[in-house]
Amino acid sequence: MHETLIIAAQQRAEARAARMLAADAATIGLGMRVQAIAPGAATLCMTITGAMVNGHGTCHGGFIFALADSAFAFACNSHGADAVAAHCAITYLAPARMGDVLEARATELERFGRNGMYDVVVTAEAQGVRRTIAQFRGHSRVIGAAQDEAGGASA
Amino acid sequence: MHETLIIAAQQRAEARAARMLAADAATIGLGMRVQAIAPGAATLCMTITGAMVNGHGTCHGGFIFALADSAFAFACNSHGADAVAAHCAITYLAPARMGDVLEARATELERFGRNGMYDVVVTAEAQGVRRTIAQFRGHSRVIGAAQDEAGGASA
Amino acid sequence: MHETLIIAAQQRAEARAARMLAADAATIGLGMRVQAIAPGAATLCMTITGAMVNGHGTCHGGFIFALADSAFAFACNSHGADAVAAHCAITYLAPARMGDVLEARATELERFGRNGMYDVVVTAEAQGVRRTIAQFRGHSRVIGAAQDEAGGASA
Amino acid sequence: MHETLIIAAQQRAEARAARMLAADAATIGLGMRVQAIAPGAATLCMTITGAMVNGHGTCHGGFIFALADSAFAFACNSHGADAVAAHCAITYLAPARMGDVLEARATELERFGRNGMYDVVVTAEAQGVRRTIAQFRGHSRVIGAAQDEAGGASA
Repeated sequence: MHETLIIAAQQRAEARAARMLAADAATIGLGMRVQAIAPGAATLCMTITGAMVNGHGTCHGGFIFALADSAFAFACNSHGADAVAAHCAITYLAPARMGDVLEARATELERFGRNGMYDVVVTAEAQGVRRTIAQFRGHSRVIGAAQDEAGGASA
Repeated sequence: MHETLIIAAQQRAEARAARMLAADAATIGLGMRVQAIAPGAATLCMTITGAMVNGHGTCHGGFIFALADSAFAFACNSHGADAVAAHCAITYLAPARMGDVLEARATELERFGRNGMYDVVVTAEAQGVRRTIAQFRGHSRVIGAAQDEAGGASA
Repeated sequence: MHETLIIAAQQRAEARAARMLAADAATIGLGMRVQAIAPGAATLCMTITGAMVNGHGTCHGGFIFALADSAFAFACNSHGADAVAAHCAITYLAPARMGDVLEARATELERFGRNGMYDVVVTAEAQGVRRTIAQFRGHSRVIGAAQDEAGGASA
Repeated sequence: MHETLIIAAQQRAEARAARMLAADAATIGLGMRVQAIAPGAATLCMTITGAMVNGHGTCHGGFIFALADSAFAFACNSHGADAVAAHCAITYLAPARMGDVLEARATELERFGRNGMYDVVVTAEAQGVRRTIAQFRGHSRVIGAAQDEAGGASA
């Protein structure tokens, strides 16, 4: 891609993320921070609080999912068009505990028509060691008029 | 099953749910209520608050997932043994909004060895109409010593 | 639904299945038989041959999937409009062996806009005992002009 | 990893693949060729024949899945221990047609305890252009005594 287009795509992704975050009480309320944003990609962090712990003494899977889902949402909306989650799958590899800092790194796997696929890896750092907590795969769909730079998606 | 065994299984499921709920800050903190519990089944409710709304003005998918995941957890732990989520998939059918009362109804599809499969239907009632919001399928796995009534699972 | 409409829907499903089957070299070539068909539902059978066995001495997962996928295809096309598989997930519960007669029973879980969700249970009968072999969940999407009886789907 | 160990791992993967293939009537019968094998990875090819075409005039999803599933099987068995598919998900991106040469490239995403996760990309080359046909994610599980080089897996 021409350098000017790359810069424009990056600026659009950043502006879009700022707009989304400002309106997203859920993401802010859970203490998520946007670490990085790029066209098709997003990295978010969240510290596990006492309110996120379940009956097994570990982070409730719903909060791990929510972090991955937010990273996915920022990534699939980064191209400009409104995209929503259609289907998501998550595999839990290891438990996370209170105080752990979770990081969710979303990358774009595919875009076809109005559809997108994104992989999100959730890791936790504790005592200087980073472990994989969950692997997430999300399918997105552009809604409304698809006026993104990819042209008239219609699948 | 003999009636005495049925009653025992129901009592175990209820006692287990009460114990789980007492220790589960996440489920309580999100305002979830356990509506019904039975061996292999659980129904939970949650009202969507302003803190659960995302940038699209609709309930963040993470909270819908969290409700389904909690119903799944209560169902797969209802037999006595400690079970955790291994893999979950969710399909979003319609958005939910602030004030909607979500209901997640978990039922047991399969149990084989230490594994279980549970389907959860999430519905919302607004203005007297109930719509399906999401379909969730969870895979659980019994951890530790599997001393449940099904005998020595070891798959 | 009015009885006349029910009969019309059943006739459409049967005519559609006959048309699909006549054109479907894959389904016929694998020896699948359509046992039952109805609006949103289909049951197919297949005997596991020596050509379907893998290195573990059990039926290759691809053939179990293919049977479930065909049952799903007959079910999601039973309403008249052309529908294709978008996303499928399968969980294997038990192995199947040469000579086992597999049955895949597809039922409709949801239809929303152009999308559909179908659950398929694959069972095997051997020595008079029927076991569950796999649980399959398929997501379909209507392609082309959606002139089915559900009206103008456009999601 | 020490070079000697790398060579040993590669030799084990190749020997394992040769043994699996020799016993796998299904993979051979479908005309699959093993293009490449390495610890945790496998690439298989298959030409779509007239017997694989469904009622839509395109390759039956079951055969696309079967190719991906075989690549997944070769990859997850490459470490020496017997591993079987537990859960697989596939997303179809574009149709494939008779005469297309499909390639399935499996790579290892995670190994934890007896569990593994593998991503498989299925592409088709026709008229010199390679397109992605499907994205597959498989979960494997080691069965029997887990005497692989990773040590005593027991999750």
